[in-house]
Amino acid sequence: MTRALTIALDAMGGDHGPSVVVPAALNSLASHEALHLILVGDEEILRTALQSHKTAGRYVASERLLIQHASQQVEMDELPSQALRNKKDSSMRVALNLVKEARAHACVSAGNTGALMATARYVLKMLPGVDRPAIITALPTMTGHTHMLDLGANSDCSAEHLYQFAVMGSVLANAVDGTVRPRVGLLNIGAEEIKGSERVREAARLLAESSIHYIGFIEGDGIYAGEADVVVCDGFTGNVALKCSEGVAHMLRHFLKQEFKRTLLTRLSALVAAPVLKAFRNKVDPRRYNGASLLGLQGSVIKSHGGADVFAFGCAIREAMLEVAQDVPQRIGRQLESHLVENSTP
Amino acid sequence: MTRALTIALDAMGGDHGPSVVVPAALNSLASHEALHLILVGDEEILRTALQSHKTAGRYVASERLLIQHASQQVEMDELPSQALRNKKDSSMRVALNLVKEARAHACVSAGNTGALMATARYVLKMLPGVDRPAIITALPTMTGHTHMLDLGANSDCSAEHLYQFAVMGSVLANAVDGTVRPRVGLLNIGAEEIKGSERVREAARLLAESSIHYIGFIEGDGIYAGEADVVVCDGFTGNVALKCSEGVAHMLRHFLKQEFKRTLLTRLSALVAAPVLKAFRNKVDPRRYNGASLLGLQGSVIKSHGGADVFAFGCAIREAMLEVAQDVPQRIGRQLESHLVENSTP
Repeated sequence: MTRALTIALDAMGGDHGPSVVVPAALNSLASHEALHLILVGDEEILRTALQSHKTAGRYVASERLLIQHASQQVEMDELPSQALRNKKDSSMRVALNLVKEARAHACVSAGNTGALMATARYVLKMLPGVDRPAIITALPTMTGHTHMLDLGANSDCSAEHLYQFAVMGSVLANAVDGTVRPRVGLLNIGAEEIKGSERVREAARLLAESSIHYIGFIEGDGIYAGEADVVVCDGFTGNVALKCSEGVAHMLRHFLKQEFKRTLLTRLSALVAAPVLKAFRNKVDPRRYNGASLLGLQGSVIKSHGGADVFAFGCAIREAMLEVAQDVPQRIGRQLESHLVENSTP
Repeated sequence: MTRALTIALDAMGGDHGPSVVVPAALNSLASHEALHLILVGDEEILRTALQSHKTAGRYVASERLLIQHASQQVEMDELPSQALRNKKDSSMRVALNLVKEARAHACVSAGNTGALMATARYVLKMLPGVDRPAIITALPTMTGHTHMLDLGANSDCSAEHLYQFAVMGSVLANAVDGTVRPRVGLLNIGAEEIKGSERVREAARLLAESSIHYIGFIEGDGIYAGEADVVVCDGFTGNVALKCSEGVAHMLRHFLKQEFKRTLLTRLSALVAAPVLKAFRNKVDPRRYNGASLLGLQGSVIKSHGGADVFAFGCAIREAMLEVAQDVPQRIGRQLESHLVENSTP
């Protein structure tokens, strides 16, 4: 029998709240027998939302689906510090508390990223040896996928931070993909005489001396060429890279659609090409990659895209299941500990 | 009659050297009556290359096509400092000298970016009021195109540098597109409590107080949504953003092709959809955007992609013509002067 695992869902978070989280939860319960979910949020709203789904009663009766009341919710544009101070009974905070109290193995939220980061750090605390949490997500590549971090938790990072990100990313890639020695690349630019900034070069030195499988610098196009299993950068660069990539992909899909809509003839050819276009859309569907992890915490926290739909939120739940099954935080902790020992060896 | 303009071409630069530069030069001469070109490089190699094109003789006879001998060439992986020291008779350097001596209005090179930057700076000197040159290029957007800088000339930039980039980008967008008050956005991230890094916030303050049409922060996806006419960022971020964008676009085109090649049936549907797919490819053809400008110098220097083909190199020549016709360096100089006056007003 598969080990039972429980995930707390911030049911009020994101642009769509319960209207997305509740059906995504029910779909996930149907697909994964060992899964238990706790919906966190306004009890009345959640009970009403559940009533409109006929499968809900079955899961509630079997206790695979619980509701945990939370009287507040964090707004999408609320300052993290204010959320931390004023929203002690928010669905986000209560969901994180469930992880802290070991009543849930992980938490998934589509809420305000900054608030989730700040609250998770406050509630769960950092792993020893990690200075800052980092956001990591999987991205499609020509050859499969890669994991990139940090995606915006830290604007400015020291070489030591980049090194810690590399360790965490390497553990994650090993855990969720089973890659034995994930290839770790440092994102850099090629145009400079002495490539990139001082901190990137210093991080390269730290990585070259470590037991991480460090493969050197990679450039922006190398991410999608599949040159590395883990791509490490500061949060400013990573966030810009991620959003640029989303923007380009969106634009290209838009242009393709536009060309097929131009005339009656092109519309007819779109009908003929429909199965191919559908396969292409599925292949590059960004929803499949929804679910970024907050790494470096004493617990698993998954950030869903704020605008995620039911399918995308389900992908974030699946990501949480994967990380819990592989004990990602514990493994990062052990890995960092061994690195600390390694570095203190005379 | 259109004013005659002369452009010096580094004929030995890039991955393909004369085999691309020579035919691109001949095509450009055929398309633009007022254009004069100087091919700079090994005279013997260039004469041989010209002999294989039957139109060449006509232009050589009319003196619209000259050859300027240069005995050396800068390698694509040569360190800029070494190129500067050891390659005083390189095709790149001689082409830049022609601009310096006012024998050419601009220079186009597909050579080593770092060496081109360093040599251009040494030969042409900076405009007064500009601390550092910046690389700018046009990028397609959902609504047209935008100009982004810096793309890798400067890894680390101060707020003042970002401000100067904004002024230069604004002048370029005004000159080449005729946009009256180009909308200038600062590239930033949205996930942080106090958004982005200190230098970006400081640059925002400088821009808000200037006469630049500053529209605020934009995120990576905003570039391609067409939110700004000019996107300003440090060279590290810009280079990563550009290369990521290229990487994603390449990957998506690859996946689309792959889906159409999968079976006999999908191959047939590709035949039906061929005109649409061709229109789409043309629309997103990165070669059309080839030709990045080095701004801030006392002269026009255009960097072509190293791997540019004949069509792409022709686009870089056209970009050079456009900038010369609009006196871009002179206009940047005047604009910066007026900003200096503006800022020194008590």
